[in-house]
Amino acid sequence: MNITIVGAGGMGSRFAVMLKQAGNDVTLIDGWKDNVQAIREHGIQAQYNGDPLVVKLPIYELAEVDQIPATSELVILFVKSNQLDQTCNQIKKLLTPNTYILCLLNGLGHEEVLQKYIDTNRLLLGITMWTAGMQGPGHPILQGNGNIELQNFGDQGEDFAQKVVQVMDDAGLNAVYSQNVKYSIWRKACVNGTLNCLCSLLECNMKQLGQTKEAPEFLKTIIAEFAAVASHEGVDLDQKEVYQHIAETFDGDIAEHYPSMYQDLVQNHRLTEIDYINGAVWRKGQKYGVPTPYCQLITQLIHAKEQILCK
Amino acid sequence: MNITIVGAGGMGSRFAVMLKQAGNDVTLIDGWKDNVQAIREHGIQAQYNGDPLVVKLPIYELAEVDQIPATSELVILFVKSNQLDQTCNQIKKLLTPNTYILCLLNGLGHEEVLQKYIDTNRLLLGITMWTAGMQGPGHPILQGNGNIELQNFGDQGEDFAQKVVQVMDDAGLNAVYSQNVKYSIWRKACVNGTLNCLCSLLECNMKQLGQTKEAPEFLKTIIAEFAAVASHEGVDLDQKEVYQHIAETFDGDIAEHYPSMYQDLVQNHRLTEIDYINGAVWRKGQKYGVPTPYCQLITQLIHAKEQILCK
Repeated sequence: MNITIVGAGGMGSRFAVMLKQAGNDVTLIDGWKDNVQAIREHGIQAQYNGDPLVVKLPIYELAEVDQIPATSELVILFVKSNQLDQTCNQIKKLLTPNTYILCLLNGLGHEEVLQKYIDTNRLLLGITMWTAGMQGPGHPILQGNGNIELQNFGDQGEDFAQKVVQVMDDAGLNAVYSQNVKYSIWRKACVNGTLNCLCSLLECNMKQLGQTKEAPEFLKTIIAEFAAVASHEGVDLDQKEVYQHIAETFDGDIAEHYPSMYQDLVQNHRLTEIDYINGAVWRKGQKYGVPTPYCQLITQLIHAKEQILCK
Repeated sequence: MNITIVGAGGMGSRFAVMLKQAGNDVTLIDGWKDNVQAIREHGIQAQYNGDPLVVKLPIYELAEVDQIPATSELVILFVKSNQLDQTCNQIKKLLTPNTYILCLLNGLGHEEVLQKYIDTNRLLLGITMWTAGMQGPGHPILQGNGNIELQNFGDQGEDFAQKVVQVMDDAGLNAVYSQNVKYSIWRKACVNGTLNCLCSLLECNMKQLGQTKEAPEFLKTIIAEFAAVASHEGVDLDQKEVYQHIAETFDGDIAEHYPSMYQDLVQNHRLTEIDYINGAVWRKGQKYGVPTPYCQLITQLIHAKEQILCK
């Protein structure tokens, strides 16, 4: 398949490496100059499950998008949520009537942005449990295992979505076609909407959060707000199951890890994606007339903390 | 006047020093052994507006309360809110039918505790703008100016309250009799219920808080919750005036100070008095059927942070 991946950070590089090795025609686009230059000169120099792996493929800067032939059937977006709108605008010449977009980003409300740039029937949404890191320009660290669930967002597009599942699966990305990807997206958003923001506000890891007396109430109240809003979008969240799913992380293998929002905000003083998690629930709640005071205050507190920490 | 002061920290020592110097018969009670011993041996060795001042007076440990003659007309309480109940229980033999209690503690709901130990008509409530610090056992630092507002909590007791105002005023404590001390207590609680908890959660000073885009919304929403609950206790808060009063601190002389709760929790890893501020509004809100989600989440977050920081 002819695939363009926008965003050559850890996740974009992982998908590029695995899809390219499986024989697909993969092009990368990235906004980070040093990264583009490193990959152009030396290829992606991955540390792949402990072993070195070099994969050569064409890469362009976002500013060079005019040089890219608009021949991709599939554009996969691995940009920050808060850069999604601007990035789509920059790459819109690649979005022909024959192009599909696949969005695997964490969070809620991405479809609202993407529908400005592509027909609903050419939009695929999904979630992924793959992870990846970067140790420098052109040097991703790719470890562990993961999977993908995806589905066409509009009524049409299932055939192509199934084709993408096959391509991903052939590349070892463990993809399945989901019958209800919206449910999976909301369920995953509940994880981020509890662990990410609470650990960032309280400056603790998941184990420490789980050991507080308040953790069950935090989870229940936040999940209930997500569920009340989700029901207006045709998603009927099983709150008990979601609670269990999140609470499992409190004493699981990764309990002593700090969630990505903590790393962004507290460690690296970077802006967060709160507007696409709790902030999206607050915004959607206002639209549907559903009160979401916990999501509202959490979003405001995280934004205030951004202003205090990020210079 | 024969006065017992319970709690010989900074504030208790200030009142002891000033009331004793004005000729009152002052006895101290304290729970901190080293402090009691230092004052017993050397008197209160204050730094009083920059000058050394030594004041000798009787002091007892809480455990020695049986040795104290129950002759005080007035008992003034300067203990931590969360120790109020236990302390009253320990000193209850001093609370005769001739005794009044004066409570100048920050926060809400102290009267509910105190009414377990004394007749409503013998309870005086107030607020004070005096401050004080401790630099070691027996060594308070007493600087700057302040004042006191107080009133009898029950229908009776005004005569004695006026007498206490006179005694305080004669001692230079700038006391006035308040016609509506409940209003003043709620108004001051709004200050603590916004600045204290938000600066503690966001780990910032008042200036930094005031510079966030979210500060006006934080203040308005929290004040509105306080006002909704206060109205059920016969207090009609002027929300606009309270807002202005709090917002003034964002660029006032003390804008770069960290509130006392920040010092307790973030700097010294001590438990806070959140249950007597936002926690009291949440608790009272439940009693009156008034939703207070911001006070609830703030109280829970502060308690969670206590569990993470205070070992």
